[in-house]
Amino acid sequence: MERRFDEALQELKKQMLTMAGQVEQAVGKGVRALADRDAALARAVIREDAEINRLEIDTENACLGLVARFQPEAKDLRLVMMVFKIVNDLERVGDQAVNIGERTLDLLKSPPLKPLTRIPKVAQLSQAMLKDALDAFVNRNADLAREVCRRDNEVDDLNRQIHEELIGYMTGGPENVQRALDLILVSRHLERVADHATNIAEDVFYMIRGVHIQHHLAGE
Amino acid sequence: MERRFDEALQELKKQMLTMAGQVEQAVGKGVRALADRDAALARAVIREDAEINRLEIDTENACLGLVARFQPEAKDLRLVMMVFKIVNDLERVGDQAVNIGERTLDLLKSPPLKPLTRIPKVAQLSQAMLKDALDAFVNRNADLAREVCRRDNEVDDLNRQIHEELIGYMTGGPENVQRALDLILVSRHLERVADHATNIAEDVFYMIRGVHIQHHLAGE
Repeated sequence: MERRFDEALQELKKQMLTMAGQVEQAVGKGVRALADRDAALARAVIREDAEINRLEIDTENACLGLVARFQPEAKDLRLVMMVFKIVNDLERVGDQAVNIGERTLDLLKSPPLKPLTRIPKVAQLSQAMLKDALDAFVNRNADLAREVCRRDNEVDDLNRQIHEELIGYMTGGPENVQRALDLILVSRHLERVADHATNIAEDVFYMIRGVHIQHHLAGE
Repeated sequence: MERRFDEALQELKKQMLTMAGQVEQAVGKGVRALADRDAALARAVIREDAEINRLEIDTENACLGLVARFQPEAKDLRLVMMVFKIVNDLERVGDQAVNIGERTLDLLKSPPLKPLTRIPKVAQLSQAMLKDALDAFVNRNADLAREVCRRDNEVDDLNRQIHEELIGYMTGGPENVQRALDLILVSRHLERVADHATNIAEDVFYMIRGVHIQHHLAGE
């Protein structure tokens, strides 16, 4: 029984990480579609989200099955419950990638408003937070999880700067409005990727330590 | 043991519904603060979110404790796991109420851009979806849960109309830009309340029937 439980747990982690890999790819593709003005890639991100949604349901079911079958306790139970939460955040990161794809298709209807400067930076920070939150899970690294939470502020600040810059473009001329709004929304979608990465990091911290990082420790 | 488990389950449901009540109030207050241009109320919503975050952690812990202690099976386990998910969505609805409060404070820096027409409508629809998703939980009403999921489209359409109308204001004059953007964001925050209500309804459906409504059945 014990060995079969360990195998099932390994299987569950693998399943979650497969999903995580697809979600990371989706965000990467969304960001690349925006930067390269690649409509086909944007459409691929939107289309491929169905697979991520399926993986979420499968992994959730695996969590429930594992709890029902093995009735794990203490830290094993905590692990399964956190996987259950994390896949939910991952699915929503996938939704953000879809949103970025949709904004990109809208932006492609017109010539570029301006060269992208800060948005690639916020994309890079958010993607790194997601990657590190998942690395913290794999390596059971509570310090890394805590550090991810702290980095959320930086993304928020950058998002605010992008906001202000683009409002400047909007007031500069009516022809800028739609494109500047699309870029503001892209920046917010990326900022939400960072929020979900923070949620995942909080869950990883709890999974390892058995205590909650206070909500919004990032605001400390 | 059986009776103590039933008591613990009742207690858990009560805890979740207490949290749900606070979250519904937060959204209601946020919407009222916007409509009445009431800065004190907007600030109250922002301040009171800390309590919602605390309730989430408490209810999550209660879920974990209940599974560890009673090792529930089948439909009881499903119920606990769905409560675990639902409180997560509720916490994020609380975050949307905070966002609405923040946008309201920003809007109060200037005279009103226009009388609110569609935003109160989208608020009303989103709040009704949240209420009905929770009623479906309380009354184990799978049909109502399914119906909530279907209503999400209506909110999305309305949100799109609001978007377009406000883009018109933005292109109409630079002095409109900031306020129109704030209203667009409020509308999106409300639309996300409806998304979370849809998630909750999906979970309630699964809790009752043991099968998943397909993701985005609302798009059927």
